[in-house]
Amino acid sequence: MKLDITKAAQFLAAGEIEKFEAPVAAAQKALEEGTCPGNDFLGWMHLPSSITPEFIAEINETAKVMQENCDAVVVAGIGGSYLGARMVIDALSNSFGWLQDSKYPRILFAGNNIGEDYLSELVAYLKGVRFGVINISKSGTTTETAITFRLLKRMCEEQRGKDVAKKVIVAVTDAKKGAARTTADKEGYKSFIIPDNVGGRFSVLTPVGLLPIAVAGFDIAQLVKGAQDMEKECDLNVPFNENPAAVYAATRNAIYQSGKKIEILANYQPKLHNLGEWWKQLYGESEGKDGKGIFPASVDLTTDLHSMGQWIQDGERTIFETVVSVEQPNSTLAVPSDEENLDGLNFLAGKRIDEVNKMAELGTQLAHVDGGVPNLKVSIAKLDEYNIGQLIYFFEKACGISGLLLEVNPFNQPGVEAYKKNMFALLGKPGYEEATKEIQARL
Amino acid sequence: MKLDITKAAQFLAAGEIEKFEAPVAAAQKALEEGTCPGNDFLGWMHLPSSITPEFIAEINETAKVMQENCDAVVVAGIGGSYLGARMVIDALSNSFGWLQDSKYPRILFAGNNIGEDYLSELVAYLKGVRFGVINISKSGTTTETAITFRLLKRMCEEQRGKDVAKKVIVAVTDAKKGAARTTADKEGYKSFIIPDNVGGRFSVLTPVGLLPIAVAGFDIAQLVKGAQDMEKECDLNVPFNENPAAVYAATRNAIYQSGKKIEILANYQPKLHNLGEWWKQLYGESEGKDGKGIFPASVDLTTDLHSMGQWIQDGERTIFETVVSVEQPNSTLAVPSDEENLDGLNFLAGKRIDEVNKMAELGTQLAHVDGGVPNLKVSIAKLDEYNIGQLIYFFEKACGISGLLLEVNPFNQPGVEAYKKNMFALLGKPGYEEATKEIQARL
Repeated sequence: MKLDITKAAQFLAAGEIEKFEAPVAAAQKALEEGTCPGNDFLGWMHLPSSITPEFIAEINETAKVMQENCDAVVVAGIGGSYLGARMVIDALSNSFGWLQDSKYPRILFAGNNIGEDYLSELVAYLKGVRFGVINISKSGTTTETAITFRLLKRMCEEQRGKDVAKKVIVAVTDAKKGAARTTADKEGYKSFIIPDNVGGRFSVLTPVGLLPIAVAGFDIAQLVKGAQDMEKECDLNVPFNENPAAVYAATRNAIYQSGKKIEILANYQPKLHNLGEWWKQLYGESEGKDGKGIFPASVDLTTDLHSMGQWIQDGERTIFETVVSVEQPNSTLAVPSDEENLDGLNFLAGKRIDEVNKMAELGTQLAHVDGGVPNLKVSIAKLDEYNIGQLIYFFEKACGISGLLLEVNPFNQPGVEAYKKNMFALLGKPGYEEATKEIQARL
Repeated sequence: MKLDITKAAQFLAAGEIEKFEAPVAAAQKALEEGTCPGNDFLGWMHLPSSITPEFIAEINETAKVMQENCDAVVVAGIGGSYLGARMVIDALSNSFGWLQDSKYPRILFAGNNIGEDYLSELVAYLKGVRFGVINISKSGTTTETAITFRLLKRMCEEQRGKDVAKKVIVAVTDAKKGAARTTADKEGYKSFIIPDNVGGRFSVLTPVGLLPIAVAGFDIAQLVKGAQDMEKECDLNVPFNENPAAVYAATRNAIYQSGKKIEILANYQPKLHNLGEWWKQLYGESEGKDGKGIFPASVDLTTDLHSMGQWIQDGERTIFETVVSVEQPNSTLAVPSDEENLDGLNFLAGKRIDEVNKMAELGTQLAHVDGGVPNLKVSIAKLDEYNIGQLIYFFEKACGISGLLLEVNPFNQPGVEAYKKNMFALLGKPGYEEATKEIQARL
């Protein structure tokens, strides 16, 4: 993985990035020593290097049981409990795999919304399907996920029998407490632990992400290996200029201080769409607090050059762009020649399609820079488990540093409680009687 | 369709919205009389009321031919040439329809990126499939779409024979000029016209959107009917306070002037995800110019309350939110009761899931308003063709007015050319020799 900030640095006065060297070092040290705000949630820091081959084997073994017994596996989880797995699975899957037979179960995501149509249609689809469930919830009481799990547990038991259900329902939850833990222990489900010191948005390399990714047929050992190598590359002892997480954190804070309020994560690979969604949670939830924080947005290019491209080129000059570029595609296809050349594309005939894409990428970078949009570029060699693992740890480490530079607690999310509290009050949840009275008085 | 701005207006001083009444009237008049900037692109204004039953029948007839002869139809188009169709089809389709047999062809979208993997995997999937193509391009030379069409045209002819290919390839293009028109005429394809005076992002009610939507099995007459009724409701002669397009345009401009720079379109219905993508093009491309314009973003809720929710609740106070709410789901499902109640959800047992969703929606609105986020609400009765048609025209008309209030030309997109010019120069396109020299000197 490489990070190129030259086309962002050119928008800043000399020294504007380097001035973050000492604060970055302090942030790195605070993360390492656990002296920063949110220091009870630093388990992600050395998570990759702590993962043993035995642990990976245990996850793969459970994945194998699900693969052998299921044609579909529903991942029930919301936020960090599904965004990481979805990102990795989409990045590595065939773009049209959903239309083709596969030797692995289809991975479906649910428990992340309260759509009556969505859940009805899920239940209707699953009728007669050999399905399993990975129930991912620290507490087991997150409304979206718990409603979904109620529906699916009962259906799985009725449809497949209690004994099979016990094999194909797996819990990823707290080690000791909570409804999902109690249910798992009581029913005899295989279960994995969400460590207490790893927050949801940093949890893709725990069983939260690893189990669904393994069930989908991907090599989680290589994913972890990529993250382990990046853990070293972003270590405390790596000099500032050679540490991509340090440089990314410093650069985006320098740009933010210069008045750019929105960061757009761009890709040129449709499979990376959900990298943007994962990244938006990681950065938005870590930094968007205390009235501060870069607003994270994402685009798929060249697709969205015909949508958000106009705004990026000519709208308010308050944005910067971070491009995730994949150096080599996994397939080979050239632009065909055409005798009549009505579309005038014969000048491209014989060129690989990726060559056209790369010139679009370079041309767009130059156009956006000319339009006043600072541009950072993160390059990976190809889309595979190893490289995605590198990206994950890079973005996580940079996020921790970046949040500390912004002087917020990057590891809490107090704002997420606000809607829940109102919702429970409106629904008359036991224990919310006072809140119910208060909120009804407002309506 | 109803628009409620009370929870946005409370953030503004008295009269801040009403002060737009005269400028809105002037904008409406300029749109009606064709005296505004971009007045050669006003064909969308009275498009719904100009659509005849005969025209709808012609589209449905072509759709029927494709339905009878295809198991998959690739819609090749980028920007406005696919976002509208995708939005409508997704809003009306079963959430898990892609996993189930259907009497209608599967609609696949391509020609909107230059992904070598994407196109390789598309071609591999289509091998042996009875597929057709709707080629949507005004010029026929848009790089993304033209490369895709080259590949698919040849493949369709080789796989299905020239005679069948002629039946299952349909062109939606210029009336007279351009490569796609020439090819269609020469090959004898059925073709439909993209009117000269309708820009891409306003084209969903032309055959650009109507044909794919009809092929997918939906009732385009009802879609158009909804738009026709909304055309009346947003007419020049409707008083300001009763005209939803006028009020939405005025409110968002008043909020923008008050310092809110980002508008987030939110839904509580997973099927409306692509409404956000369509809306982002409509507003971003119309308003993001001359260094101005609200930055359009979108979220799916409650899903993204566990992702962007923290930022929305507590980040920089520079955002406002427009919620698209669907009053009634199309399915019926209740929260099941559970004897043990480990998850503590029995207080919801027997309630419809949509009731929980609605309390989440209301609770979120109150939480966001408390957090300083002005909130607008657009409600439709249900997800069906008629209501989606209403939404489409409402957002289009409001967009035209809003762009004029912002004093930009809402109907051009000069910024989209910047990347294309660079890309062609880098690829050595004939005619770009000077630009090629210049850009190579920069590298």
